[in-house]
Amino acid sequence: MSNLNNRQWLFVKRPIGPVDESCFRRVEVGMPEIGVGQIILQNLYFSFDASMRTWMNEGPNYLEPVVLGQPMRSVTLAKIIKSRHPDFPVGEIVMGMNSWEDYSVSSGEGFCQLLPNIPDIPLSYFLGALGPTGYTAYFGMIDIGRPKTGEAVLVSGAAGAVGSIAGQIAKLYGCFVVGLAGSKEKCEWLVDECGYDLAINYKECDDLDGKLAGVFPNGIDIFFDNVGGATLDSALANIGNNARIISCGAISGYDAGENPSVPIKNHWMLLIREAKMQGFLVSSYMHRAVEAAEYLGTHISNGDIIFREHIEEGFDSAPSVLKMLYAGKNTGKLILKL
Amino acid sequence: MSNLNNRQWLFVKRPIGPVDESCFRRVEVGMPEIGVGQIILQNLYFSFDASMRTWMNEGPNYLEPVVLGQPMRSVTLAKIIKSRHPDFPVGEIVMGMNSWEDYSVSSGEGFCQLLPNIPDIPLSYFLGALGPTGYTAYFGMIDIGRPKTGEAVLVSGAAGAVGSIAGQIAKLYGCFVVGLAGSKEKCEWLVDECGYDLAINYKECDDLDGKLAGVFPNGIDIFFDNVGGATLDSALANIGNNARIISCGAISGYDAGENPSVPIKNHWMLLIREAKMQGFLVSSYMHRAVEAAEYLGTHISNGDIIFREHIEEGFDSAPSVLKMLYAGKNTGKLILKL
Repeated sequence: MSNLNNRQWLFVKRPIGPVDESCFRRVEVGMPEIGVGQIILQNLYFSFDASMRTWMNEGPNYLEPVVLGQPMRSVTLAKIIKSRHPDFPVGEIVMGMNSWEDYSVSSGEGFCQLLPNIPDIPLSYFLGALGPTGYTAYFGMIDIGRPKTGEAVLVSGAAGAVGSIAGQIAKLYGCFVVGLAGSKEKCEWLVDECGYDLAINYKECDDLDGKLAGVFPNGIDIFFDNVGGATLDSALANIGNNARIISCGAISGYDAGENPSVPIKNHWMLLIREAKMQGFLVSSYMHRAVEAAEYLGTHISNGDIIFREHIEEGFDSAPSVLKMLYAGKNTGKLILKL
Repeated sequence: MSNLNNRQWLFVKRPIGPVDESCFRRVEVGMPEIGVGQIILQNLYFSFDASMRTWMNEGPNYLEPVVLGQPMRSVTLAKIIKSRHPDFPVGEIVMGMNSWEDYSVSSGEGFCQLLPNIPDIPLSYFLGALGPTGYTAYFGMIDIGRPKTGEAVLVSGAAGAVGSIAGQIAKLYGCFVVGLAGSKEKCEWLVDECGYDLAINYKECDDLDGKLAGVFPNGIDIFFDNVGGATLDSALANIGNNARIISCGAISGYDAGENPSVPIKNHWMLLIREAKMQGFLVSSYMHRAVEAAEYLGTHISNGDIIFREHIEEGFDSAPSVLKMLYAGKNTGKLILKL
């Protein structure tokens, strides 16, 4: 009999409403084996990202839903401990999408990549500022937002890992940048540390439409949207001519079930302002990962972009750490160190 | 005393719900006078366009609302009968935005243009296929849609003046083109005369989401949207990767009051399909009017694009002709000949 030394968290119940620990069951299985062209990865860090809640629903998505009875998954950093693949030598670290388990098998395809060679960066940053989080902020803001000096930018979920970087990139382009966040502490951090021009605590704002109208008298040029729903409607009500809305996430609806989008009513503004709303997936940009990593690495090294991590520890905590993410209890990019 | 030989239709009541004749009052006023740099236009044809209903609301729009007590307005064709402007000689015809009246004053700015020099085209076509209607179809489909051979295209309001041309342009680019229209006759015309691959009578379709899923197994690449609301939601539910939604109109909500957009709930699909929804206004493209007119003129002359007009007569009919437009009673581009 094999040793059951590979811990797993199985996904055993589709949540209705918020996800909690009852959706997962911990088991122990044997070590995986590999064939030609495969590698065995020892998972070191799990990334926790808002989109994970949507993978638990059965509705249409950019990834297949997580299968009931199979392990949950995360973006991870993992060490190659066994290799039958010439491009992935033992000892190297890869970033990829793996199951919630100690040891995963990969063929090195798709999202799986060796880390870019950026000096003086803590390893965990390759899940965050120099991983999919930072790349999402970078490609969304640069490729869809196309910021120009003097333009007015709004970021929702601004104190989140993606949002905080997106706004700082817009600042580097000379934009006026305003963030929406859900606490006084987050708002202060955005202005004092991240260099946002202004941050609005949406939980203490009764009339966001009116507030944004005052802050953006000439309209919003770029809206980096991580939230959707009512926030998106308030932004739409205040977009300027030729505005670009970057549809990055819609966390306000992720607990709602199959269709994560909370209805909106102000999309008429797209027409009369000749504006666009465009979705994107960072997975489509991974061939340009080095470009993003070099940009972000340079600006993090010289202090132009700051990045905050929130690292929890221990494989057994994975379900409770996920729950923490949606409660907004983390302060910075949420990572679990195994 | 001046002769009261300039008839006008004043806008006297903002409609709540559908517009009808009670929103207008006919008066007769004196001939206008002009200063240096101005021209007097004799209006020959009024264009009737779906967007006119939105000008009667007070909410945000791309044009100022029509002022109560002032004349209603249309895009018109008009003859220059007096000129103190060197670029606009007496006897020439211009297309522009004028009041519902016999004689208008213009400074020749903004939307006002001499007709492009396209041979063998009936005059009224310069309000339709070779006017703002055709230009809207052309720039929306070409600049935002960017059709490629083999792509799958859906057009709503397909039997309307803009929609029918938009679909025919997509056919010329080698696309698979499906139209949505509101009667059997309109659907037959789209397939038999306009060359659409398929037309769906949405009034006889209980499950448009499911119907579109069957017709577009690989998703919709381009959706040219004249309708908005539930139709837009059904299209969103079926968009393909990197789809382009051209937000041209939202007639389903034009009677609803200040905000013409009927709520939508499937905009999540933009994100997961990396798609965009983009609004545009033909007025922003008028500097390229000749490009559009030459393209459309050529294809109309050689029969590649067909165009149907519905011409009513008599100044006094203007309010009832407008009502006819929203009842969908016209068959082709609706024009009033004065």
